Amino acid sequence: MHKIIIDTDPGIDDSMAIQFAFASGAFEILGLTTVFGNVSIDITTTNALRLLDLLDRSEVPVSKGAANPLEGVFGGGVPFIHGDDGQGNTNKPPSKNKAISLPAHEFIIEQVMKFPNELVLVALGPLTNLALALRQKPEIQHKVKEVVLMGGNPFCPGNATPAAEANILSDPLAADEVLGAEWPVTMIGLDVTHRTLLRRSDFDEITQNPSPINKHVTSAYLFYLDFFKRANKIEGTYLHDASVFAYLMRPDYYTTENYPVRVATHEGVGRGKTWPSVGDTDQEEREALKPWKGRPKINICVDVEGEKVIELLKSVLLSGSV
Amino acid sequence: MHKIIIDTDPGIDDSMAIQFAFASGAFEILGLTTVFGNVSIDITTTNALRLLDLLDRSEVPVSKGAANPLEGVFGGGVPFIHGDDGQGNTNKPPSKNKAISLPAHEFIIEQVMKFPNELVLVALGPLTNLALALRQKPEIQHKVKEVVLMGGNPFCPGNATPAAEANILSDPLAADEVLGAEWPVTMIGLDVTHRTLLRRSDFDEITQNPSPINKHVTSAYLFYLDFFKRANKIEGTYLHDASVFAYLMRPDYYTTENYPVRVATHEGVGRGKTWPSVGDTDQEEREALKPWKGRPKINICVDVEGEKVIELLKSVLLSGSV
Repeated sequence: MHKIIIDTDPGIDDSMAIQFAFASGAFEILGLTTVFGNVSIDITTTNALRLLDLLDRSEVPVSKGAANPLEGVFGGGVPFIHGDDGQGNTNKPPSKNKAISLPAHEFIIEQVMKFPNELVLVALGPLTNLALALRQKPEIQHKVKEVVLMGGNPFCPGNATPAAEANILSDPLAADEVLGAEWPVTMIGLDVTHRTLLRRSDFDEITQNPSPINKHVTSAYLFYLDFFKRANKIEGTYLHDASVFAYLMRPDYYTTENYPVRVATHEGVGRGKTWPSVGDTDQEEREALKPWKGRPKINICVDVEGEKVIELLKSVLLSGSV
Repeated sequence: MHKIIIDTDPGIDDSMAIQFAFASGAFEILGLTTVFGNVSIDITTTNALRLLDLLDRSEVPVSKGAANPLEGVFGGGVPFIHGDDGQGNTNKPPSKNKAISLPAHEFIIEQVMKFPNELVLVALGPLTNLALALRQKPEIQHKVKEVVLMGGNPFCPGNATPAAEANILSDPLAADEVLGAEWPVTMIGLDVTHRTLLRRSDFDEITQNPSPINKHVTSAYLFYLDFFKRANKIEGTYLHDASVFAYLMRPDYYTTENYPVRVATHEGVGRGKTWPSVGDTDQEEREALKPWKGRPKINICVDVEGEKVIELLKSVLLSGSV
């Protein structure tokens, strides 16, 4: 059983991912840490608390994290994808619970030091909290078991811009620091999430589970489906955040390759692109190029058995009590 | 017959491309304009003059162009690919002829205005001369028949860096201006030149032509082959610059798609990447994104019948008197 912290910006697909993680029984979840991203930090924190209520798991701590990227300010998120409330404009009342007083990056440090080499950091949003934890206590990079993140588009076009995936673009500097630290990182980006299609018919099956969390998440998900229909012209959605938990449960569904990765942090059309040191010339020479030189190799998911991931998701969401 | 100016930084593959253009009989070549790139402007200009001597076409004017990109300074080129003399260290004596006094960008303007809507600008190096011509006389963008350039990597990794192709990286700002002007542009980048492999065995056939230009170019080409063997681990070379003339002779060998393109001009790991407005979401929405909005669509070569291109090259280089 993986001992994990979920760093998240719920967000509709974050919500389904969190439900998936709890319902699977495959994880010991030490806490949720929140971050700005899909919507503001106040809203993502409210949503994290409410999700735990609906899961009947209010004892799991929520720690509130970064309101803004390392440099610059939060740009307003993507309410046209997730709703103004980050939950498809379902406008549910807030939880009666509160976030703990410890900020997210300090909670991460505390838990990593408490469980050295045991903890997996699961990141579903911008990587600001992880970067802040690294900056405050660099030694955690040698004490984390693994960082598994949803983000990036190493070998395909972006979704927020032609160059960039949304989580990385929200804080490219934090991403570059997280991908440069000496902890094992697995990157689940658009190369695989775009090959994992949750069809409208799959979604309709999932709605059959009458649990409180499932009723809420599937209700919110209608808003998300509507965005994909309008923007991507598909009846369904790509499976972004939930893919991280699918990877942790069934890494054999994924094909990975290992390269150092830099993030384009400068302003301009290429901002937020994740660049593996890949090209037509000799790989060793390429990795010796200055920006990539000495950087650790990232475990990049490059292909996936998408149908199997969807089957896993459906079986978990339909089988459990949550 | 295409009326053309060849803007070039010879360079070994530029030299074969120029030989190919003259030998084909398919072009009325009004002049060669030189630019820094593979080596310095003084050396590329010397080489252009010498190539014309060897072709017995010294009446064709050579006009010397930019020594440096629009911003910054020439970085020293790639002598490890083309030799210190840009001709595989064949170290031939210079031509007795000189470049004309008119600088390249003014020569381009003069010829465009003299032959409105007739002239094809063929660009084999950094796009500085074309950008300078545009800046000095913007109306030429409405009087050029077509710009056909070797450069960019819209859908594949780069060769100079993981992000960028060498010609574009040499002057990203010039490239962004040239790709933003309202003239028809066809872009022949690594997506197709990397699928056009001149094998060592093809090269060996070409050496059979005993003409002075062929003896020189094939002699220089040995140095270029050696680089590809070392860096790319292939026995042969990709056909970069000569592909532009193949395209002009046989556009039916190429598959093209049309998108607005921006160039990453900022410093950093992504500098020099050519970004078409391509992604998974609705294409019209994507083209309306600010950096791409209102930009003209570039005719991008995305696939090629590489074997046919090589056959064309061989038949031209083996059949003619040059």
